[in-house]
Amino acid sequence: MSMQNPVFIPGPTNIPDSVRKACDMGTLDHRSPAFARLFKPAVEGVRRVLKMDEGEVILIPSTGTGGWEAAVTNTLSPGDTVLAARFGMFSHRWIDLCQRHKLDVEIIETPWGEGAPLAAIEKALRADKGHHIKAVLATHNETATGVKSDIAGIRAAMDAAGHPAMLFVDGVSSIASMPFDFAGWGVDIAVAGSQKGFMLPAGLAILGVSPKAIAAMETARLPRTFFDFKDMLASYAKGGYPYTPAVGLIAGLAHAIDLLESEGLDNVYARHHRLAEGVRRAVFAWGMAPFAASPDLYSDTVTAVKVPPGCDGTALVQLAASKYGMAFGVGLGEVAGKVFRIGHLGMLTEAMVLSGLAVAEMCMADLGWPVTLGSGVAAAQEYYRGTIEAVALAAE
Amino acid sequence: MSMQNPVFIPGPTNIPDSVRKACDMGTLDHRSPAFARLFKPAVEGVRRVLKMDEGEVILIPSTGTGGWEAAVTNTLSPGDTVLAARFGMFSHRWIDLCQRHKLDVEIIETPWGEGAPLAAIEKALRADKGHHIKAVLATHNETATGVKSDIAGIRAAMDAAGHPAMLFVDGVSSIASMPFDFAGWGVDIAVAGSQKGFMLPAGLAILGVSPKAIAAMETARLPRTFFDFKDMLASYAKGGYPYTPAVGLIAGLAHAIDLLESEGLDNVYARHHRLAEGVRRAVFAWGMAPFAASPDLYSDTVTAVKVPPGCDGTALVQLAASKYGMAFGVGLGEVAGKVFRIGHLGMLTEAMVLSGLAVAEMCMADLGWPVTLGSGVAAAQEYYRGTIEAVALAAE
Amino acid sequence: MSMQNPVFIPGPTNIPDSVRKACDMGTLDHRSPAFARLFKPAVEGVRRVLKMDEGEVILIPSTGTGGWEAAVTNTLSPGDTVLAARFGMFSHRWIDLCQRHKLDVEIIETPWGEGAPLAAIEKALRADKGHHIKAVLATHNETATGVKSDIAGIRAAMDAAGHPAMLFVDGVSSIASMPFDFAGWGVDIAVAGSQKGFMLPAGLAILGVSPKAIAAMETARLPRTFFDFKDMLASYAKGGYPYTPAVGLIAGLAHAIDLLESEGLDNVYARHHRLAEGVRRAVFAWGMAPFAASPDLYSDTVTAVKVPPGCDGTALVQLAASKYGMAFGVGLGEVAGKVFRIGHLGMLTEAMVLSGLAVAEMCMADLGWPVTLGSGVAAAQEYYRGTIEAVALAAE
Amino acid sequence: MSMQNPVFIPGPTNIPDSVRKACDMGTLDHRSPAFARLFKPAVEGVRRVLKMDEGEVILIPSTGTGGWEAAVTNTLSPGDTVLAARFGMFSHRWIDLCQRHKLDVEIIETPWGEGAPLAAIEKALRADKGHHIKAVLATHNETATGVKSDIAGIRAAMDAAGHPAMLFVDGVSSIASMPFDFAGWGVDIAVAGSQKGFMLPAGLAILGVSPKAIAAMETARLPRTFFDFKDMLASYAKGGYPYTPAVGLIAGLAHAIDLLESEGLDNVYARHHRLAEGVRRAVFAWGMAPFAASPDLYSDTVTAVKVPPGCDGTALVQLAASKYGMAFGVGLGEVAGKVFRIGHLGMLTEAMVLSGLAVAEMCMADLGWPVTLGSGVAAAQEYYRGTIEAVALAAE
Repeated sequence: MSMQNPVFIPGPTNIPDSVRKACDMGTLDHRSPAFARLFKPAVEGVRRVLKMDEGEVILIPSTGTGGWEAAVTNTLSPGDTVLAARFGMFSHRWIDLCQRHKLDVEIIETPWGEGAPLAAIEKALRADKGHHIKAVLATHNETATGVKSDIAGIRAAMDAAGHPAMLFVDGVSSIASMPFDFAGWGVDIAVAGSQKGFMLPAGLAILGVSPKAIAAMETARLPRTFFDFKDMLASYAKGGYPYTPAVGLIAGLAHAIDLLESEGLDNVYARHHRLAEGVRRAVFAWGMAPFAASPDLYSDTVTAVKVPPGCDGTALVQLAASKYGMAFGVGLGEVAGKVFRIGHLGMLTEAMVLSGLAVAEMCMADLGWPVTLGSGVAAAQEYYRGTIEAVALAAE
Repeated sequence: MSMQNPVFIPGPTNIPDSVRKACDMGTLDHRSPAFARLFKPAVEGVRRVLKMDEGEVILIPSTGTGGWEAAVTNTLSPGDTVLAARFGMFSHRWIDLCQRHKLDVEIIETPWGEGAPLAAIEKALRADKGHHIKAVLATHNETATGVKSDIAGIRAAMDAAGHPAMLFVDGVSSIASMPFDFAGWGVDIAVAGSQKGFMLPAGLAILGVSPKAIAAMETARLPRTFFDFKDMLASYAKGGYPYTPAVGLIAGLAHAIDLLESEGLDNVYARHHRLAEGVRRAVFAWGMAPFAASPDLYSDTVTAVKVPPGCDGTALVQLAASKYGMAFGVGLGEVAGKVFRIGHLGMLTEAMVLSGLAVAEMCMADLGWPVTLGSGVAAAQEYYRGTIEAVALAAE
Repeated sequence: MSMQNPVFIPGPTNIPDSVRKACDMGTLDHRSPAFARLFKPAVEGVRRVLKMDEGEVILIPSTGTGGWEAAVTNTLSPGDTVLAARFGMFSHRWIDLCQRHKLDVEIIETPWGEGAPLAAIEKALRADKGHHIKAVLATHNETATGVKSDIAGIRAAMDAAGHPAMLFVDGVSSIASMPFDFAGWGVDIAVAGSQKGFMLPAGLAILGVSPKAIAAMETARLPRTFFDFKDMLASYAKGGYPYTPAVGLIAGLAHAIDLLESEGLDNVYARHHRLAEGVRRAVFAWGMAPFAASPDLYSDTVTAVKVPPGCDGTALVQLAASKYGMAFGVGLGEVAGKVFRIGHLGMLTEAMVLSGLAVAEMCMADLGWPVTLGSGVAAAQEYYRGTIEAVALAAE
Repeated sequence: MSMQNPVFIPGPTNIPDSVRKACDMGTLDHRSPAFARLFKPAVEGVRRVLKMDEGEVILIPSTGTGGWEAAVTNTLSPGDTVLAARFGMFSHRWIDLCQRHKLDVEIIETPWGEGAPLAAIEKALRADKGHHIKAVLATHNETATGVKSDIAGIRAAMDAAGHPAMLFVDGVSSIASMPFDFAGWGVDIAVAGSQKGFMLPAGLAILGVSPKAIAAMETARLPRTFFDFKDMLASYAKGGYPYTPAVGLIAGLAHAIDLLESEGLDNVYARHHRLAEGVRRAVFAWGMAPFAASPDLYSDTVTAVKVPPGCDGTALVQLAASKYGMAFGVGLGEVAGKVFRIGHLGMLTEAMVLSGLAVAEMCMADLGWPVTLGSGVAAAQEYYRGTIEAVALAAE
């Protein structure tokens, strides 16, 4: 029988039942006024989650990768320079995308496990007297290493350097799970996906775009049609869409934001922090540590657990799947085997997280890793029971 | 947000996603041949789950209580004697139902925590020289105490006494989760409900009826219409139903049996036993014990946990619900407060059960009970990891 | 491929998508406060639909037949007299049920096609000087013949006769589709089912019960447990239920009533009348007529169409199903073959009804009946386009 | 209340219930073997529907527009020449996309209402002695005008000209509804979307790619990442996906193809033809005609109905939506107002189509157009009843 354990991959995340129902809708004529009625709350909701005070929200039937591509193709031209730090698989991939699109990427190589290097960024910007750098790319939460970066710090660095570049932020695995402040941080494009904190199926790239980035599209010469913001905004203005929209996901997005806001965004962030901290307590109780270089970098959505010497993180992930029907994330790229990843974002309860920790422990014991069964669970229990808010039993 | 922890009440149980989908169907004309095509596999599937070699399966849009009522009203007449042991809330309720229907119930009062008293039953039957006892009622699994009874033993007692009474078995919380042998045990009526081992929503009483019980309906004078077997069987024979059937539940039943049989009924029973044994190991690790009087009585679908002196089981259940969003069962009747109940039947994985145990432990700690966090979890982990079969990741 | 034409049986009716979603829910602990939060709106909603000003609403996991049984077993004793007119299959079945439960039914045989005979009822009541008649049974809408009866008229007859009998009304195929006035008509028990005007799957008997009927349960000696009102009301008072409730159907009921009330009950009734009148215009355009004896008896939920001499209504129903995938109702009992029935209740639009009429016409042509293709459709179109209110495109 | 009439827009189409269920799935780890098990049947199914004998199937979380973009960016370089006829809004848009991507489009302007001009295409290819034309773009079914083009004829023209260009076919509104022969027609890239003949929600671009087109990606210099075939094929080979896939849509695609194949693809095409022909009979009975220039061009998936002089097709579409809750398609671009469009593809029955025709007639009468109510319905009825195959009642 197909059993339904929660997943602990760092996205796609567990989908609440009511979100699934909101997405699962009959066919609607997207050229009718009904579409506009459904679209507007989704767009307005994203605006609130991102904390935008101006600019536009763009929804594209695509993924985070498509969101990255939309960000750069709508604002930049071949040969333009962008500045980016590389410190994990996902920061790498965005850089690679830029290079494929003939952008000149000034890469700040940074050890995996660290976050965006503020001083180096500021230094690079100061060195760019001619303002060739058109955009700074920042990965808010590096899903591969479980590291969050200080976006406010990047903005401060840009301001300190007096540099006019745009700030593009990959918030795919942070937005709607960790605090985000589009307006406060001076973000020009924020990229999110439906399948992480928004708790939807994959299939929607979600972007916040500042007026400055919108203005940039007038001169941007990278080719685009599917991702074209201008077509989008022109259609939105008429209550339409430039091609067939992913209506169900848009309806689901509006509903998911309703859920998040009925819990309270601050409560959502606090819950993610609490769940994450419990996971970290378990990790330390196992005698291990997060891969992130320092506590200030710990992600509240995913923990990459450094495995003991001689142990193989990938083996744990495979065993958890095959023996216990539970999905964790493997280490990617240069940390393959050296970590396994526990996603703890989206719809999750303390009880669910404890089940994940318990399964991880069983796998460790099965694989002969040095761990005491129940030790991580107990550490997380102790933390959770002292910090949890009362939750009402789900009436749904 | 409405979080979706598994429930650990002893029914209704967690519903697999595909069962929900099977139940959720558009309107079908129940007077068309399509209904018969849908009905037959459900009936045939129940026959296999019950291990019937003859007799009929009856499906009524009702519940286990309705199934009890159907059993007696179709086969008995006012003033008839039935023999029943009372050792828990559910055996009590069936007795009460019989009394309301003007049956003369010969009650063998048995301490809660024990099972059906074979010797006393045999003795009572032997004493009934005139064969006034028309039926023996047996509660296969007393949901209130977590006690299973030996139905084969009751049949042996009846045979030893040479008594012609019918044998009616309440299998509501056992059937489809624990081995059941309608033919082998000489059962005359077995009563099940949709919402336990069959993993469906409540709303369907499921009965297996022997030829002897069917014959009894010819002379039974207790009034019935909604529950009337004769109407049912006459309609079934024509591919119909005497009134509007619960089509979705019937479709879901057929699908649920497909799931059970694709896992293998023996594997389903083994899984229930394994999950239950893990729970019991946790209970002992907590320094507590199941309420069932002896290990041979331990139910594999529900464990009533005796709480330590001075502790209140109901408080634990309330705290688990209000603080952790998790549902356990309270003690009922004379064991109110003295136990709390962990249901471990239906769609459950080791990971889910561990989450339940972890939450129970947190509640105990919160309530000041003497327990070491993680202790029960560790005992269950150790047992599970040594006994679990590989399960494939749910592709569904 | 399984195509999804609307059904035109007189129940179960087409289920709105959002009602299906409301019914399709995960497992909820029915002993938790969450159940009470879900139950109360359903009960309160039924109270408004029935127009009750006092008394109780009872919801039983059962069907209309179960509702009939609950009505009589909770209020009457063996040998009690009830008065009922028989003028169709469903009035017959309730009478039969009473007889099986040892009630003495004074039957007023009435030609099928007519409604409840007010004068005869008044006469019978006046003749019952000793007030042996404890209840008058009335079938508000005889589903077999498409005839509505005048319940206010029956109440007037009872009052005129000064008779204290209770008034029990079968509103299974009228309630929520045609005006009903529990308080105004002095109804003592109204019986509805989930699968008609409430647009839910079958599986819920819905009853309104007056204080007088509740008082009657104190002395009623017909046996009942599953259907026992006293257990129900005692449990309801504590936010509970006497056994496992059909939680999904109860949630769906609350939602369906929300839908009905957001349309406006008067608008719902007006829509049913308009759809029905269009069907009747089509029937006359075909040169046929409703089976109901006179226009004041025309049901707004089902039309039994008298077929031309030499034609077989059942053949039409079978052909519609096998060739066109569309479900109509056959004639039952003494009108088998002489009529076919078009159900036009629940979630239906003008467009849907026109598709039903168009299919009926094709079947008639296929069977060689004298009909002009498009004639009935045109008559209904003409009526609908002159009377329809603007409906918003479904945004769901 | 939100009523659920079928839609008659030319896509997205009505979604079968079981397809909705197949799409609506819980979260699956797309890096686990479960994903490969789910992905392979979808890909293999598309291969059969397209009639591919070699090459690759590509599935992208996108739409038909994204499919167009993927086709050209993976195979062409800036400045490459493509040949395309423009005879409707959708052929126009693909041309526009090419131009935005810096391709040199040799456009054969063709009157709207006509199909791809074979002679002109052959002439253009013969004139291209230097083989600058790298690809011929062909719109198999022009959704704006209801015109199908002769793809086999284009292939013949290419062969006759001895031209090595690739053949790219937009089959968005034809594939899975009208015969398609990837191998037989020598197609190099076929573009389809999920939301038309495949009866899924929008959100998936579906492409068939020939070995020749795959080889072209080695030298193609148009930038792409999200749409990159090479990344896709490398990931597919390992049972993976280059980013997060739209798992539910992929599962739904496999299921939808199961439905199509269980009906039989030839039967699906025949059904579409039959439904379309009935619509056309209605159109002629109204005294109107399809916009397509000649019968050999009539599309079996959408009919653009030329409205009488002085009438406004857009007004009809708006009235149908606002008054009758039914969705038709407006005329686009140069035929705005001059036509209205009836989509008749995907999950549709004769009964549903008749409801659409009946509503169209009511709108015409409401708008004062010269039409006899029921006339088109009758013409379609006559045709359908003579040609329909028996369909089994939906048991789902």
